[in-house]
Amino acid sequence: MTFSRTRSDELFLRATKVVPGGIYGHLAPAGGLPKVFPHYSESAEGCRFRDVDGNDWLDFMCGYGAILLGHVDPEIEEAADRQRRDGSVLNQPTARMVELAEAMVSRIDFAEWAVFAKNGSDVTTWAARVAREHTGRRFVLKAKGAYHGVDAWCDPGFGGRIPEDRAFVGEFQWNDLDGLRDLAKEHKDDVAAIVLTPYHHAAFGPSEMPAEGFWSGVEELCREKGIILVLDDVRAGSRLHEGGSHRLFGFTPDIACYSKALGNGYAISACVGREALRRGARDVFLTGSCWSDAVAMTVAMKCLEVARERNVVGRLEQLGSRLSTGLSEAGARHGFSFRLTGPPAMPFPWFDGDDNLYLLQQFCELCALEGVFFHPHHNWFLCGAHDDATIDQAVEVASVAFSRLTVEKG
Amino acid sequence: MTFSRTRSDELFLRATKVVPGGIYGHLAPAGGLPKVFPHYSESAEGCRFRDVDGNDWLDFMCGYGAILLGHVDPEIEEAADRQRRDGSVLNQPTARMVELAEAMVSRIDFAEWAVFAKNGSDVTTWAARVAREHTGRRFVLKAKGAYHGVDAWCDPGFGGRIPEDRAFVGEFQWNDLDGLRDLAKEHKDDVAAIVLTPYHHAAFGPSEMPAEGFWSGVEELCREKGIILVLDDVRAGSRLHEGGSHRLFGFTPDIACYSKALGNGYAISACVGREALRRGARDVFLTGSCWSDAVAMTVAMKCLEVARERNVVGRLEQLGSRLSTGLSEAGARHGFSFRLTGPPAMPFPWFDGDDNLYLLQQFCELCALEGVFFHPHHNWFLCGAHDDATIDQAVEVASVAFSRLTVEKG
Repeated sequence: MTFSRTRSDELFLRATKVVPGGIYGHLAPAGGLPKVFPHYSESAEGCRFRDVDGNDWLDFMCGYGAILLGHVDPEIEEAADRQRRDGSVLNQPTARMVELAEAMVSRIDFAEWAVFAKNGSDVTTWAARVAREHTGRRFVLKAKGAYHGVDAWCDPGFGGRIPEDRAFVGEFQWNDLDGLRDLAKEHKDDVAAIVLTPYHHAAFGPSEMPAEGFWSGVEELCREKGIILVLDDVRAGSRLHEGGSHRLFGFTPDIACYSKALGNGYAISACVGREALRRGARDVFLTGSCWSDAVAMTVAMKCLEVARERNVVGRLEQLGSRLSTGLSEAGARHGFSFRLTGPPAMPFPWFDGDDNLYLLQQFCELCALEGVFFHPHHNWFLCGAHDDATIDQAVEVASVAFSRLTVEKG
Repeated sequence: MTFSRTRSDELFLRATKVVPGGIYGHLAPAGGLPKVFPHYSESAEGCRFRDVDGNDWLDFMCGYGAILLGHVDPEIEEAADRQRRDGSVLNQPTARMVELAEAMVSRIDFAEWAVFAKNGSDVTTWAARVAREHTGRRFVLKAKGAYHGVDAWCDPGFGGRIPEDRAFVGEFQWNDLDGLRDLAKEHKDDVAAIVLTPYHHAAFGPSEMPAEGFWSGVEELCREKGIILVLDDVRAGSRLHEGGSHRLFGFTPDIACYSKALGNGYAISACVGREALRRGARDVFLTGSCWSDAVAMTVAMKCLEVARERNVVGRLEQLGSRLSTGLSEAGARHGFSFRLTGPPAMPFPWFDGDDNLYLLQQFCELCALEGVFFHPHHNWFLCGAHDDATIDQAVEVASVAFSRLTVEKG
């Protein structure tokens, strides 16, 4: 494929003058493959996008998970358009807020209430505060390397923090139940919350599923010590189970946070909780200028409905498995022990033994040159617009990439 | 006016079952006039909205400031619609991000860079962290009662905080330059930032404009001590001056935060800063799932352009002055010393001597019964869709309210 990136480079050069670092956060070019990934995109539809140089890509990131049903899904856009004509941010919420809260409460087994915000971080940080309010305790325990947002108690950067930001945050290794128990013992009677993702989806490494007995052990510890179990389902929510990712792993949190897939590209996040947390939830201040935005709430309602109608969870599982099998087999044919880790719907790719990610980066680069957007450092995301044909197309491109990788290796 | 609120009450009753407190934050009914304000609205257009019981209102809150040009402005919606068809949240930013950053930098005199987020809080909190990173100091000084968002270092609630959240936050009285100097002396060499709104627009009381010499004194202190001056222009931005509210008051901050009026109901916020802060800005982690949202960025660009074309700042000043004069005169005719405080474009109403807000609440209630949405506890907002006729209509309703208030008083 002829791979032009003139306009991408031009835009980035302009950006470096007016934006610190040019592009920041998870979209920063240095976080991906700056030599082959585009810096800027123009448009998207379904499971494909076009970059600013006119190159077409088969998308396996889906807006880093924000796109569940496919880019510019007609049914979603039609619902958004209808609401948009009536207004977005009014002086009062619309009925959509009540309907969406009712829908979340009815769909998520343990939920008795719901609140809405704009970012994942809005709700993960708020949930930790609700746990502190409810328990009157201070410590929040989390897994090392787990991403829970951009706030100072948990952000993955190094800048702009003072020691007090994390004075009452403790970390343990994912799946290390003994380590967690020790930490809880160390901060005896002062642990407000344990905040965890449903499985460990850290960047730059294979995803780790919960070990046998991990979740039941966490749950038991929480119940025994009166610790609030906060599920950060911001990244995985809506992709693994319609009723929340805890259902897939057989545990029950006290509070759960959702965002990415909730709005198919319209910014919205949600936090739901048990009845016992209602008073704490009422007493921790929560608001934002556009949080009552009726368009995002309309879209979120429609996403829940449409995802169920189209059996998106089932389809992503099936498509992800097809991708996993296809890639592993293609890799094996060329002598690579390659596999997808984590759930099929949002897998992290891995070459066994490739701890410095060298092979993975080469592989993703070779796929990128053929227009398949496989990220080497972040888990991928499937969406409802993928189908068997697009998966097979990606596997075919990957096969060629594996063959070239063999040559380079050899 | 026959004032039905059956459906509003029904919805609120449903909401209390599934949302802690039913409605939270600045939209909570208890924050306004729960007996006469609707709890839920249905639609809006221009400077009017319709509640869920079909009552029509003349709007003087404009989505608490989020609506600058008028609800569902055709030009804005046309721009949003065009971008929406190309996608919202892609795997890369679109060219819109570069263009918007360039537009902000070109429009705001001291700005050399810009970043974008979704909430006002996203950027006020981040700006404080950038100041800490840049200076290597810890203290953030702010005015008592000033609202800078929902994060634990500054939120107006009481729940979910631990002392460490505010261990390095100091407060002084607005306009009290000596108090500020004393505070800075007390925390000698450890003050990272002074965070201030352009004028003091606290809730539940008259707005306070900067006293003669206040801003120059603040600026001088910052320059002398190497303290970063952070302007929180989230609420006032775009309404007082096209180049940022500091221009109206003749000072220059180091960093400024914008949000409400930036997206006319599409969630977006921005932070801009001086060249010297660029490294700090690059080093404090900043990201969010939907922060690259091309629709909100397209809309923000269009808002800047359209607001200039329509001379919205000038119009709001003129309309606000007309409202101010009209209301004061109508009040005086009925024996009330009533005035609008703060800038005409976003005034806070005040009866002299009415410190418990009794008269103000009665007045706003009487206006509400005639379909004019005057808030008794929060500054009002004018928008580009108001005109002389709507202002005069509001003044007429207010005149009747003043006359009834006289009777009640008498």
